[in-house]
Amino acid sequence: MSVKINENYLLLKSNYIFAEINRRVEKFQKENPDAQVIKMGIGDVTRPLPKAVVDAFESAVLEMGQVESFMGYGPEQGYSFLREEIIEKDYKKLGVELSTDEIFISDAAKCDTANIQEIFGLENIIAVTDPVYPVYVDSNVMAGRSGPMQDNGQYKGIVYLPCTAENNFIPELPETPVDLIYLCLPNNPTGTALTREELTKWIDYAKENNSIILFDAAYEAYVTEEDIPRSIYEIEGAKEVAIEFRSFSKNAGFTGTRCAFTVVPKDITAVDSEGKTHDLNSLWNRRQTTKFNGVSYPVQVAAKAVYSPEGQKEIKESIEYYLKNAGIIRESMEKIGIKVYGGMNSPYIWVKTPENMDSWEFFDLLLNKANIVGTPGVGFGPSGEGYFRLTAFNTLENTIEAMNRISKLSI
Amino acid sequence: MSVKINENYLLLKSNYIFAEINRRVEKFQKENPDAQVIKMGIGDVTRPLPKAVVDAFESAVLEMGQVESFMGYGPEQGYSFLREEIIEKDYKKLGVELSTDEIFISDAAKCDTANIQEIFGLENIIAVTDPVYPVYVDSNVMAGRSGPMQDNGQYKGIVYLPCTAENNFIPELPETPVDLIYLCLPNNPTGTALTREELTKWIDYAKENNSIILFDAAYEAYVTEEDIPRSIYEIEGAKEVAIEFRSFSKNAGFTGTRCAFTVVPKDITAVDSEGKTHDLNSLWNRRQTTKFNGVSYPVQVAAKAVYSPEGQKEIKESIEYYLKNAGIIRESMEKIGIKVYGGMNSPYIWVKTPENMDSWEFFDLLLNKANIVGTPGVGFGPSGEGYFRLTAFNTLENTIEAMNRISKLSI
Repeated sequence: MSVKINENYLLLKSNYIFAEINRRVEKFQKENPDAQVIKMGIGDVTRPLPKAVVDAFESAVLEMGQVESFMGYGPEQGYSFLREEIIEKDYKKLGVELSTDEIFISDAAKCDTANIQEIFGLENIIAVTDPVYPVYVDSNVMAGRSGPMQDNGQYKGIVYLPCTAENNFIPELPETPVDLIYLCLPNNPTGTALTREELTKWIDYAKENNSIILFDAAYEAYVTEEDIPRSIYEIEGAKEVAIEFRSFSKNAGFTGTRCAFTVVPKDITAVDSEGKTHDLNSLWNRRQTTKFNGVSYPVQVAAKAVYSPEGQKEIKESIEYYLKNAGIIRESMEKIGIKVYGGMNSPYIWVKTPENMDSWEFFDLLLNKANIVGTPGVGFGPSGEGYFRLTAFNTLENTIEAMNRISKLSI
Repeated sequence: MSVKINENYLLLKSNYIFAEINRRVEKFQKENPDAQVIKMGIGDVTRPLPKAVVDAFESAVLEMGQVESFMGYGPEQGYSFLREEIIEKDYKKLGVELSTDEIFISDAAKCDTANIQEIFGLENIIAVTDPVYPVYVDSNVMAGRSGPMQDNGQYKGIVYLPCTAENNFIPELPETPVDLIYLCLPNNPTGTALTREELTKWIDYAKENNSIILFDAAYEAYVTEEDIPRSIYEIEGAKEVAIEFRSFSKNAGFTGTRCAFTVVPKDITAVDSEGKTHDLNSLWNRRQTTKFNGVSYPVQVAAKAVYSPEGQKEIKESIEYYLKNAGIIRESMEKIGIKVYGGMNSPYIWVKTPENMDSWEFFDLLLNKANIVGTPGVGFGPSGEGYFRLTAFNTLENTIEAMNRISKLSI
C-alpha cells in the first residue's frame, strides 16, 4: 500500500502560462544580453503604493512593536474597520446595501476565486468564458469537476462560452444547463466589459435556471463608461444569485502587499441532495474560519487608507495613468492597421494578431524583433488563439517606447 | 435543477471550539461587567514584534511607496532572500540540508496544514492523535475523507491515536493501515513532546508502511530539552516520508502579521492508480502557484529579520518569558494538587481536571469562580475529555494573578 496522489492534478495540461513566457524571455535575454526588454505581459502594476496608504501601513507596523497596541490573531473574516469601510465607500455609492458579515477580507482574489468551488458539490457543472483567467478552470480541474483536456483545448465536462471578435466578446447564454458561471468583468484577458443591460440577462438567466454567478470584479476601478456596472449588485436581484470578488491589487497597487475581499450575500442559497437549502454565507464562513487565518493587521490598516480622501485621489491618478497608457497602445496599434479590443474600461488591450499569426508566433515576433513581452491569447483558452494580451501597467515612457518599436516593424 | 453544496460540510459536528468559548465568555462579561477576566484560552501571543523585525518591516513598507523600490507580485513560493535564510538559520544548524525550492513561504501554518490534503487522493486513510488541532480533522472532513461523527466523538473513517495520561501522551503506532499521519510536536494542545528515539519509531513506521507524516513544528522554538528534536528532519530518512510545517507566529509573535512556511523535500513521493510515482514537491508547487499568490513583501522582509542577531536575541527573550509563565502555571497547579502535563517544551499546559469534572464543567468553574478563561480539552477530540488547556501567552502579571485566584479556590 502507498499514499495516493490527487489524480486530478494529472489532468492539468500545462503549467501556468507565465512559466512558459518566463522560459522564453530568459532564453532570449541570455542570447541577447544588451536588448532592453519591455514587459507588457503579466498584469502587474508598477506605480508605488499611494502615500496615504504607506503612511497608514507604516503606523500600523509601529503599533505592532508596542505592547499596548500590539495585535495578535484577528478575525478570519477581517477587521470590522475595513469591512465597514468597504460597505460605505464601495457599495453605498452604488446604491447597494450590504452587512458587515457579508464581506470576507482575504489575501487575494486569486485565492478566493480558486477556493470558492470548495463549498460546492463536485456534481455541479462549471461554465467559463473562453478565453478566461486560468485559475477558475484549473481549480475546478484539481477538485475533480472535469474530465481530461480534449483535442479542442477544452476540458471535458466544463462548458466554454466563446468570446471573440465575431460575437463582440459578449458571451452567449449557455445552451446546456450549467450551475456555476464564472464571469470576470471588466474582463481579463480581453479588456472588454458588459453593459448593464447585457449583465442583466445573466442575472435573469441565473434566476430562471437556478445557477450561481461567480463574479470577478478585480478590474472595476477601470470602468470609465456610464453603462458599465462596477458591481454585479447594481443589477436587481443579483444578491440572490451572485458572489462578487474584489481586490486592492489593480486599483491601489497591492499586488505585492496582498489584500482582497469577497462578498457573499446572505440571500444566496444552494441545496443538498435532499433538496434542503443552505445559505452560502455560512458555508464560506465555515471554510474561511477553518482554513484561513486572516490578513496581516498592518495590511488591513493600509487597505482602509485606500478609502481616505487622499488615498482616493492618489489611486484615481494611478488609474488615469494606466488608462492613458491603454489609450496610447490602442491608438498606436490601430494606426498600423492592427485590430485591438478592450483598454477602455480595463488596463488590458486584446490584440488580434495580424496576418493570421497564431498567438505564440506573434509572441516570438514581438520578443525577437521589438523586445516586447506580451501574453499569448491562447494561454487563456482555445478561443484566445490568434489573440494577444498587452497590459497598460508599464510606465508611460516604456509604453511609448514599446509602441514606437512595434510601429517600426513591417507587420 | 439547483446548485449543490459540498455536503461534506454537513458532517462537521460543531463550530470551531473558540466560538463556543467566546459565547460563554461574552455572556459572563455581560452579567458581570466588573469582573477582570484573564484569558488563557486561545493560543495567541501578547508580546510585541521584536524591534529588529519592526525596523525591517517599516523600511520595507517605505520601499513600497517609491517607484524605484516598489514591489509587485512576488513568487508564489516566497522570495529567495527568506527561503535561503530559513535553510541557513533554521536547518543547517541542525545538520539538515535543504534546497531553496523545498521551502514554500505562506501566510499561515493553519492554511498549509488545511490545504496539504488537497494534493492527496480521497481514498487515503488519515490518522490523527487525539486530542488534536481541529484543523487537521475538519479540513479532511470537508474534503470528503470521513463518514459522519459517531457516538464516541470520532469521525467514521479517520483513525484516532489517543494520547492521555495513561500512555504518557505518547501515541501508539496505528494498528490498522493508515496513509497520512498528522503529528504536531511539541504538541498542541497537550504541550508534550516526543524524544528523538520515540519520533524515530514513527519514521520507521512510515517507511515500512509507505505512509507519509505531516509534521506540524509550529512550537519548535519552545523546545528546551536536549533529546527533543526541533525538526523531523533531524531523524535519519525523514526527508523521504515527512512534510514539515513551521510558523513565525509562536516564536516571533507573527499571529497578527502572518507568515509561515512548509518544507516539502523532493524525495517524498506518492503514487497514482497505476502505481506510477509522483514527487509531492511538484504537486504542492502546482497547488500553490495555482491557488495562492504569495505573502506580502514587507511581511517577508520582516520575517527575514527574525533571523538577524538582534531578532534572535529578542525572540529568545520572549520565549523565555512565556516559558517562565508556563513554569509558574505548572508549579502553582501542582502545589494545589492538580495534575498537569506539558509546559516544558511548549507554551501549553495540559491540566487534568480535578475530581473527575468534565472539561466544560471545569471551564465554567474557572470562568465563574476565578474569572479565568481556558480551553476545554474535549474541544480537541474525545480523548481530551477531562482535560483543560492553559496557555502561557499572557503577561507575567496576569499569569501570577490567575494562579493566585485558582489557588484560592477550594478544588
